[in-house]
Amino acid sequence: MTQPAYDVLAIGNAIVDVMAPCADALIEELGMTRGGMALIDTERAHRLYEAMGPAREISGGSAANTLAGLAALGAKCAFIGQVAQDQLGEVFAHDIRAGGITFDTAARAGDPPTARCLIFVSPDGQRTMNTFLGASQFLPESALDLDLIASAGVLYLEGYLWDPEEPRAAMRRAIAAARGAGRKVAFTLSDAFVIARHGDDFRALIEAGEIDILFANEHELAALTGIDDFHAGITHLGGKVPTVVVTRSEKGAYAIDGGEHAEVPAEPVAKVVDTTGAGDLFAAGFLFGHGRGRPLAECLKLGAVCAAEVISHYGARPEADLKALTRTA
Amino acid sequence: MTQPAYDVLAIGNAIVDVMAPCADALIEELGMTRGGMALIDTERAHRLYEAMGPAREISGGSAANTLAGLAALGAKCAFIGQVAQDQLGEVFAHDIRAGGITFDTAARAGDPPTARCLIFVSPDGQRTMNTFLGASQFLPESALDLDLIASAGVLYLEGYLWDPEEPRAAMRRAIAAARGAGRKVAFTLSDAFVIARHGDDFRALIEAGEIDILFANEHELAALTGIDDFHAGITHLGGKVPTVVVTRSEKGAYAIDGGEHAEVPAEPVAKVVDTTGAGDLFAAGFLFGHGRGRPLAECLKLGAVCAAEVISHYGARPEADLKALTRTA
Repeated sequence: MTQPAYDVLAIGNAIVDVMAPCADALIEELGMTRGGMALIDTERAHRLYEAMGPAREISGGSAANTLAGLAALGAKCAFIGQVAQDQLGEVFAHDIRAGGITFDTAARAGDPPTARCLIFVSPDGQRTMNTFLGASQFLPESALDLDLIASAGVLYLEGYLWDPEEPRAAMRRAIAAARGAGRKVAFTLSDAFVIARHGDDFRALIEAGEIDILFANEHELAALTGIDDFHAGITHLGGKVPTVVVTRSEKGAYAIDGGEHAEVPAEPVAKVVDTTGAGDLFAAGFLFGHGRGRPLAECLKLGAVCAAEVISHYGARPEADLKALTRTA
Repeated sequence: MTQPAYDVLAIGNAIVDVMAPCADALIEELGMTRGGMALIDTERAHRLYEAMGPAREISGGSAANTLAGLAALGAKCAFIGQVAQDQLGEVFAHDIRAGGITFDTAARAGDPPTARCLIFVSPDGQRTMNTFLGASQFLPESALDLDLIASAGVLYLEGYLWDPEEPRAAMRRAIAAARGAGRKVAFTLSDAFVIARHGDDFRALIEAGEIDILFANEHELAALTGIDDFHAGITHLGGKVPTVVVTRSEKGAYAIDGGEHAEVPAEPVAKVVDTTGAGDLFAAGFLFGHGRGRPLAECLKLGAVCAAEVISHYGARPEADLKALTRTA
């Protein structure tokens, strides 16, 4: 096995976030579930955008956010994801490349447009997401650069992208390529709805030993394992997956790595502005430490510091100097 | 003269700002003038965007920013400006309408795309702007709704838009329509380059009594009058224009209104994040107070409070509740 050329290669949705503050009453009025993620069609996207206040556009996408954090920490990263040939596609491609991440997936011609996520941010910072998948759901197997995948130490996959058919097939292929090259496969469960629809797939992947590192929040952990008790649930998974990391919002995070357990409290944040990307950046910090063989508690601390940075401002990509922030972590 | 249906109607560039933090060294390396505004072509836009870090897109445009502030304060506003039929055009239209501003200018088909301004934000918050005018420079006279213009108490014009030929002709027509209806005409000088190219036009408009309210910063004041001494310069203009407002960055602002002089210090700001829109929001606060017959010093204070809000975050549109912020002003 050769030395990896990349630390992490991720496959994920290529999304531009459209974010605006909003009152909780509007979330209810629009029939959204506060804190949730819903897939929306063109008509619903139009209606929700109409109801949204003045917004800002910031590149997003769960796995892409994680890479942005990893790259900011100093990791070498590559991304595979599908944008369309339009202005938002150019924005997404610019932002990820400007972060130092290799991104060569060809933009897709014609309709649908580049994916966007309409994010309503409550006064307490909670985000309610409405994702129009657009071009992102058509990531074809042919977009995979299998040599590139084989050249990365970790293949990182986003559960959200397990939902549409083409990317799911592409990700299965990518897993085979990574494992064939002796690389690790990391997976983030993303959302409860993903587990509701694809939990059987995920459990089968885990039983088959295809997942080396699993990221979840505590709700996703319960949904995946069917075990309500947090410690029982994570211990159960820890017997099947080498590294399990579970985030618990303000209760911090917990990990099991090769039988070793560690826990970290949430980092204090002066003001939570927008929680979008908290889990993504936690994964970035953790993976960065893990890839460098840092002690488990230190990996968790790195995750917590990165998550705290990203929730202190609008947008799911880091703004502050993560290297400086994590120097003492 | 009927009661105005709108407080302010503005004609200006319809621009989406593309903003990223940057080191001052990069500004020099790219041949930009720190704190300046340059018009750029497609090729230069491409080159500068390539060199820019991960960015965020926020609707901008000088006069449109002023309207966003006015609307947030409670004024009834309308905007006329040219976007293209593209995603950034949709973003601009959404954001201005979501702010409660009437905007009915039809999007322009085909090339060029919607205007964008590449803004490099220095660590001290200073902004360096590079504007690709795109569709904005093709605002035709036929886009004017003369009844709408006649129905607004104040017609507010942006000097930047005096540069391209079609909008200049449109603005001359709009001035005639507004004055014919007995309305006031407000003008912001925008930038030294505009005065260098069109100072004769502006001086002629002033001498002809076509401008009722003039906004400038101290550099623009000197460029327009040819008088270096600040007080001599503003007093000179105050003899020709009923209301003159000059902003002086951290030195505050000064106004002459019907012979009355007033001055205000700059509002304290915890941290200057991005100075983009400072003058635009100062104009918003001032115009709001002036339109409601508030004392001159109070109008200046309103301007200072709005400017302080907008420089405390990224983007040239207000984020905080301006009504609440100015309640004590």
